[in-house]
Amino acid sequence: MQKPSLPKGTRDFGPEQMARRNYIFNKIKRTFEKYGFQPLETPSMENLSVLTGKYGDEGDQLLFKILNSGEFLKKTSPAEYESGEKAMLPKIAEKGLRYDLTVPFARYVVMNRHNVNLPFKRYQIQPVWRADRPQKGRYREFFQCDADVVGTDSLICEAEIIMMMTEVFGKLGLENYEIKINNRKLLGALAELAGASDKESDLLVAIDKLDKIGIDKVVEELKSKGFSDESLNKILPVLDLSGPNQNKISELESLFSDSETGKKGTEEIKEIFEILDTTNTPTDKVSLDLTLARGLSYYTGAIFEVKPLNVKMGSISGGGRYDDLTGVFGMPGLSGVGFSFGVDRIYDVMEELNLFPDEGLKTIDVMIAHFDNESLKYGLGVISKLRANDISSEIYPDIAKPKKQFTYANNKNIPFVIVIGSEEIKSGLLSFKNMKTGDQESLTIDQIIEKLK
Amino acid sequence: MQKPSLPKGTRDFGPEQMARRNYIFNKIKRTFEKYGFQPLETPSMENLSVLTGKYGDEGDQLLFKILNSGEFLKKTSPAEYESGEKAMLPKIAEKGLRYDLTVPFARYVVMNRHNVNLPFKRYQIQPVWRADRPQKGRYREFFQCDADVVGTDSLICEAEIIMMMTEVFGKLGLENYEIKINNRKLLGALAELAGASDKESDLLVAIDKLDKIGIDKVVEELKSKGFSDESLNKILPVLDLSGPNQNKISELESLFSDSETGKKGTEEIKEIFEILDTTNTPTDKVSLDLTLARGLSYYTGAIFEVKPLNVKMGSISGGGRYDDLTGVFGMPGLSGVGFSFGVDRIYDVMEELNLFPDEGLKTIDVMIAHFDNESLKYGLGVISKLRANDISSEIYPDIAKPKKQFTYANNKNIPFVIVIGSEEIKSGLLSFKNMKTGDQESLTIDQIIEKLK
Repeated sequence: MQKPSLPKGTRDFGPEQMARRNYIFNKIKRTFEKYGFQPLETPSMENLSVLTGKYGDEGDQLLFKILNSGEFLKKTSPAEYESGEKAMLPKIAEKGLRYDLTVPFARYVVMNRHNVNLPFKRYQIQPVWRADRPQKGRYREFFQCDADVVGTDSLICEAEIIMMMTEVFGKLGLENYEIKINNRKLLGALAELAGASDKESDLLVAIDKLDKIGIDKVVEELKSKGFSDESLNKILPVLDLSGPNQNKISELESLFSDSETGKKGTEEIKEIFEILDTTNTPTDKVSLDLTLARGLSYYTGAIFEVKPLNVKMGSISGGGRYDDLTGVFGMPGLSGVGFSFGVDRIYDVMEELNLFPDEGLKTIDVMIAHFDNESLKYGLGVISKLRANDISSEIYPDIAKPKKQFTYANNKNIPFVIVIGSEEIKSGLLSFKNMKTGDQESLTIDQIIEKLK
Repeated sequence: MQKPSLPKGTRDFGPEQMARRNYIFNKIKRTFEKYGFQPLETPSMENLSVLTGKYGDEGDQLLFKILNSGEFLKKTSPAEYESGEKAMLPKIAEKGLRYDLTVPFARYVVMNRHNVNLPFKRYQIQPVWRADRPQKGRYREFFQCDADVVGTDSLICEAEIIMMMTEVFGKLGLENYEIKINNRKLLGALAELAGASDKESDLLVAIDKLDKIGIDKVVEELKSKGFSDESLNKILPVLDLSGPNQNKISELESLFSDSETGKKGTEEIKEIFEILDTTNTPTDKVSLDLTLARGLSYYTGAIFEVKPLNVKMGSISGGGRYDDLTGVFGMPGLSGVGFSFGVDRIYDVMEELNLFPDEGLKTIDVMIAHFDNESLKYGLGVISKLRANDISSEIYPDIAKPKKQFTYANNKNIPFVIVIGSEEIKSGLLSFKNMKTGDQESLTIDQIIEKLK
């Protein structure tokens, strides 16, 4: 008999983990919906023609491909078999598993362009799959949690991203974190200022590593890419800007007074802060950080990242504005701004900081324990009253020793147990036990319902 | 530029469909949880060693297989390529997509046998994939919605399945349906009674087709399988039993007075009805139906099926008791009972009967419309107050013509719009428009909050 196992890099989520995960998902969903985002779900499988070429060569490698069903070798030839994977792949696999939520979203918008209500605010919480080498904290199946607005340039959307980040982390009880904001236009202007407009992407890639490798290595890398000392003398002080956000903005205003791109980037940042002020959004955790680059992705305006402080952990949320979501599918010029929450990391941070509340994790309100057939039958009447009052409840289904029944309730995190024996049936006063404190009271069923409601 | 498309048999769920689907899912989830079931999620991918051989030959064909990543031809030989799919498959694919939720559940229980809190009540709502030929109402990716209790023989579980079915369909506003119940032991006893114990599965298969092909063809099929006229004379009157459930039970009691299996099956049915009585569960929609067979699956006790009446549609819920969930993974003797809801079919029935309530489908409570920069800015203050009171709301993000803003709100099913212009700013009395009736009132922000809360 085989011992069953899980594929590498995948996980089961048992009842306790599900309760914790749903606790996080529900706060995020509620916040997305409160701000007017609507849910979208796309199929797990996409045609490889939709997925391939969207994530770079490495991404194409990491796509999980689905073998065509039935006679999957039918379209292949021995010559193709001999020449290897590259020739065989397109003949034996037409579909792949979703790699992220952005490409399926773009595909959806293009396929539904005549029905989509612009500006379209959608959120999407679904698993994605990547054939990455599994390692600690990196999975082959994991959930992404995205919200995007497309079809508007309004900076209200950027400000609302900061509001939603603040609201979600506030609801989750996370207090020590920093929301970093920057603007790709500022980084472009910086390259321009340094006389290295042609090397903007080299600058981005180098800055992106600052956290990991430190400023000295970044300087080294920039030099190796051909940045002159003179260039570096213009760039480094900007990366080093500190002090309150307003001061940084003032410095950028004077620094970029001659740069159209720089002025635009600064104005955008300024307006986002103004909207945050107008809406009374606290900005003490928001920091304009010129060293935030967000890799080489397609961002063109504001970019965001949230880092927890006091915990060793990468970013737990991030996003930015892009100019062209759907151009690759033949529908150019649709701009938008989006962000996502990293649920696995948030889970780990909350566990480390002990932020999951007991109350949020309880399964049902009350269990009924009993001693014999008579009390079991009486209990069935009791439970039907509880449920008629919409109280989550269960009755231990078998005649079993009290200890076994209480252990079951304890393991399941059930806060209260009603104990029914012959005494209770006679008097109509049920023993109502608090499983945490051990306290026990004698109450009528109506009193119990009153307490639990 | 390629036109993007969806793989055959898969679907996007846009905001409106999601709202309707979530309406159904939420009622089901709430009911499962109210009865003490806890959520479980398993990975989309399973090792093929876990999946293969569990669903019969046809099932194995319908499994979606995932191509190994990287050099997937490495383990193959030209000879294997020449000999075809059967030889190649195990060398190029180790994983497959989940085909149902039962096998992954069994695998989970076996892998976590030391931590599972028995009796274990789990529910699982996740997509499954089958490489079926796509056709109307049949998809290659669809959600299953299962609840199972394992580790107890208590018939309370069977009765609670009927309670949950009643509760879910009641909450969804479905009134015309029938819950059919039968017991595999009764069908076994029937074969025994007819002197055809060795042909029990032929009997099951034939009865299972009764709805589709009618009694004459069933008789024909049974004859072709070797059932004698004498046998049929014993079987047919039982299949034809009618009248109230209690009468049917009495008839079965006398019919099976000499059959251990028959007596056991009848007693089980009787006890389930007794528990339903004790818990005041209405049984007017529950019907003991000796012609219910539930195919050839692994059921050994009670079986259930729900059919909507007045709508042409197959079963929308079903399940049954089984003796051995995990034996195939080396952990024998774990019995249980489970059932599932067919969400796609329920969706179609509700749409046909117009049962989706507007209220359940609204996206946000209110939108703010405005005329210019000044009213937009004023609106930002208003929306921050709404959201501080946990009211779902959005502000139209761009300066745009009122008509455009109202169309957006209408398309999004937003019930109220607050209109802000210079008058409103001066007076502090905002125009509060009911989008359904067209009624408009002048209210302070506090009055609006009071109305919306």
